[in-house]
Amino acid sequence: MFENNEQFHRETGIDPEAIAVTLLRAARAADNETLPRFRTKITVDNKYSSGFDPVTKADTEAERAIRAIVETDFPGHAIIGEEHGNKVTDSLFAWVIDPVDGTRSFITGVPLWGTLIGVTYAGKAVAGIMSQPFTGEVFLGLPGRAEWRRGEERQALATSGCADIAAARLFTTAETLFRTPAQKAAWESLARQALLIRHGADCYAYCMLAAGHADLVMEPGLHPFDIAALVPIIEQAGGAIAAWNGGPADNGGDIIAAATPELLDKALERIASSQRG
Amino acid sequence: MFENNEQFHRETGIDPEAIAVTLLRAARAADNETLPRFRTKITVDNKYSSGFDPVTKADTEAERAIRAIVETDFPGHAIIGEEHGNKVTDSLFAWVIDPVDGTRSFITGVPLWGTLIGVTYAGKAVAGIMSQPFTGEVFLGLPGRAEWRRGEERQALATSGCADIAAARLFTTAETLFRTPAQKAAWESLARQALLIRHGADCYAYCMLAAGHADLVMEPGLHPFDIAALVPIIEQAGGAIAAWNGGPADNGGDIIAAATPELLDKALERIASSQRG
Repeated sequence: MFENNEQFHRETGIDPEAIAVTLLRAARAADNETLPRFRTKITVDNKYSSGFDPVTKADTEAERAIRAIVETDFPGHAIIGEEHGNKVTDSLFAWVIDPVDGTRSFITGVPLWGTLIGVTYAGKAVAGIMSQPFTGEVFLGLPGRAEWRRGEERQALATSGCADIAAARLFTTAETLFRTPAQKAAWESLARQALLIRHGADCYAYCMLAAGHADLVMEPGLHPFDIAALVPIIEQAGGAIAAWNGGPADNGGDIIAAATPELLDKALERIASSQRG
Repeated sequence: MFENNEQFHRETGIDPEAIAVTLLRAARAADNETLPRFRTKITVDNKYSSGFDPVTKADTEAERAIRAIVETDFPGHAIIGEEHGNKVTDSLFAWVIDPVDGTRSFITGVPLWGTLIGVTYAGKAVAGIMSQPFTGEVFLGLPGRAEWRRGEERQALATSGCADIAAARLFTTAETLFRTPAQKAAWESLARQALLIRHGADCYAYCMLAAGHADLVMEPGLHPFDIAALVPIIEQAGGAIAAWNGGPADNGGDIIAAATPELLDKALERIASSQRG
């Protein structure tokens, strides 16, 4: 939608760099709520009495921290959050928040969860951040660029350029999530041909695709807040992402991301043909 | 086998602290070979022409670096390596090396692979290290203690204390690895009951169990070098590990690790009954 910074600024009236500043500040505020609760030791007795407390608190407190910053910086914008509901306004901008994506990773000490904050404009994801504070990594997508940061390190994100399913490293969170026969057939149509399959990386998988280390990511049944932040990171790194039916990924659903538009087209064709039987 | 440092020293004639020093030096030498090759950008054309070069080189060079240090510090000891074969001696000690455990993680940019160096004495794993240089973590098991290190941070490793399958966080690398009907039945017997299932963490899963963040890890068909280093880390953290038939885990095979001996017994009973069914 927006090829670069200037076009975005002209059409929306907002400087993408201001959005970047807010994304980074909000992600840092979330990190301060999530990281101290990660790998918390808990007694077995009360571990799951009312959900898993550390991740529940990380979720609610991180979203609260993010919302406070967004409401200060962009008071007129809408907010869609996993934990605290939606703030509806007449702005075309919405901030879409998943304070802890990858709950299972969080609960099991695995540093592949992330805080996701996406920005949509007229329903299209235009900017987003993924923050993983244990590894200290941030993945950022903005109109015209995508970058990885770790401490003082900065690197432009660029996908692998892979255009063949047979050469693709394919990620999914768990094959058991493909529940219906149609979902199973869709998964099998790619899994059969891919070079290798890797399980269990949640939002981190999409970021590895943006960074050139994975080539396909396929997941069923995502919420908008699971994916909105990741769409700009992937697209600005040279990748492509869509719903399995070829529609936009921005609103979630059954999603496929690819290192190149060419690879996405091949994957979508294969999925479509798996659905015809 | 060895409850503490002194008993080990008395019976084997070797100070476990000397083994710790060698494990840490060897792991650091391996890190210098693995980390610079992790997340290497490669062109798509030659990506897999002759295996995946970066991980192949990381594997061979890291094992070479580890062996050089072990041969200097303990020239009479045996060495069992994934890449460079076995050095047979008449020592009861053997150093068991998997320079990069978790090849799929390495290839896809995911920091859950690790360098594993185990020390066996008369066939029993007595000390071991897992090093993950991207996160900067080291997990160390020695006679009488297990610890986690990250930079200047040190923490004793202790399992969760979980004693119930229904409260257990269960890891496996991929359910598709359970290939035979007996393996599938064994997996299902635990997966049906566990609190949650997490996929795809290789050696990192066992370390999360030792650190109290996972409660069961189950994998089929492991090599000795996949598991020897992890046995002392798990056992000295209060966990228990065995082959599915209840035999020792030290030589690989179908393996189950648990947060407590009680949980291991329950899991083994369940597996056994799945094999009778």
